[in-house]
Amino acid sequence: MEDNLIIYGRNAVLETLRANRPVNALFVANDVKATKGLGEHIAAAKKAGVIIKAVTPGKLDELSDGNRHGGIVAALSAVEYATVEDILGCLDESGSSTRVRGILIADGIEDPHNLGALIRTAEAAGFCGVIIPKRRSAAVTSAVYAASAGAAAHMKIARVTNLTDAIKTLKDNGVWVYGAESDGVAYTEVDFSGSRGVALVIGSEGQGLSRLVRENCDVIVSVPMFGEINSLNASVCGGVLMFSIIQGDWRSKKA
Amino acid sequence: MEDNLIIYGRNAVLETLRANRPVNALFVANDVKATKGLGEHIAAAKKAGVIIKAVTPGKLDELSDGNRHGGIVAALSAVEYATVEDILGCLDESGSSTRVRGILIADGIEDPHNLGALIRTAEAAGFCGVIIPKRRSAAVTSAVYAASAGAAAHMKIARVTNLTDAIKTLKDNGVWVYGAESDGVAYTEVDFSGSRGVALVIGSEGQGLSRLVRENCDVIVSVPMFGEINSLNASVCGGVLMFSIIQGDWRSKKA
Repeated sequence: MEDNLIIYGRNAVLETLRANRPVNALFVANDVKATKGLGEHIAAAKKAGVIIKAVTPGKLDELSDGNRHGGIVAALSAVEYATVEDILGCLDESGSSTRVRGILIADGIEDPHNLGALIRTAEAAGFCGVIIPKRRSAAVTSAVYAASAGAAAHMKIARVTNLTDAIKTLKDNGVWVYGAESDGVAYTEVDFSGSRGVALVIGSEGQGLSRLVRENCDVIVSVPMFGEINSLNASVCGGVLMFSIIQGDWRSKKA
Repeated sequence: MEDNLIIYGRNAVLETLRANRPVNALFVANDVKATKGLGEHIAAAKKAGVIIKAVTPGKLDELSDGNRHGGIVAALSAVEYATVEDILGCLDESGSSTRVRGILIADGIEDPHNLGALIRTAEAAGFCGVIIPKRRSAAVTSAVYAASAGAAAHMKIARVTNLTDAIKTLKDNGVWVYGAESDGVAYTEVDFSGSRGVALVIGSEGQGLSRLVRENCDVIVSVPMFGEINSLNASVCGGVLMFSIIQGDWRSKKA
């Protein structure tokens, strides 16, 4: 899975082409009806010099392992992971539309849909990158790409052996690390800031943050709950907090 | 599916029992290892006088249609849908922990995971109820229950023939209706309020709001995007907006 990545779904394939990821081949359905609306994809592939192959819908089903592909599949040679240093470098890039630059840390998110949705949300919130651990986490697979609606192609994603070490590196470099748990300070009371940037750690739904990760966070924040159910889906929790982090930004811009 | 509802998954079953939904029978694995951690479920079922049956793990797999059940499955006789009037009545209930009472309207959410996550988020945000249309929408199925982590058991959910009529009824009763679309006012600029309550309409990812629904909203609000991907997952978008709606509440409480 990690040495060969199959991207399926119209959004995911288009964003992969737009992000100039090295696509080995683009497979398009050899059926006029199925290829309706794929003009933009084909133009982008031609512009990038990508080989385009017309194949049967059955072949596309096979390539996408039975997942919904919308008549198009792209084959990449490998996932290109970034390093924590790459992500740190991106914090200082000028021309960002948000003043507070964010980094998302996904601690043990094993469900590809949740990890994909978190990457998509981080990208939409203008975050610089995502850090995931090698163990106890989904890797950036085809399913994660699809669930991210292609956002994974645009994001710097670092996959690290030791998340605690990565957090220490971020802190040593002027990033404040906020961990999400049920027993922290209400996020509405927190002024998310850091001299160089802000990192948000989202844990898995079942386990929460790992002990060492939690101990290394600067602040533990919570989303207050007002019903009978005392937790949110991990990607929804991440969305509420990521947009809260950059919302502080808009407020200060207006002031 | 609608006349018989199978609830699987530990959270979903426990919340169904806690919400005093009429459970016909509770099926528990006849394997000591698989039932570890189910004490609270069994105690709640006994208290409610629910019949408990010990069955093979294979039988549970069959009942849950191959979905992850965690060693427990509950059978309900039918989904009990609420009416729009039931939900309106709940707006005026005292003892709420949020001043702004919310109603979520899911316009054409066909993916059970997204609908479940939206119901879960609405419940966690202290919303009064959820309105879904009969057509072009997932019904409240077993998959929706599971994805809601059991929140569906605690929520008033109305399933209506005509969403536009339901919106008109809400407006006639002092509820302001905010629709989420990509071309609206940034949500951070909106003071979510209504003399009796606030309704938020979330459309499907592909189609957005239906035309008539959109035309009947009081205000169209957007979540600003800062990356290459110009949309969020429907349940993440709903989460950002629902917590923003009740966040205004906390602010005014503090002021």
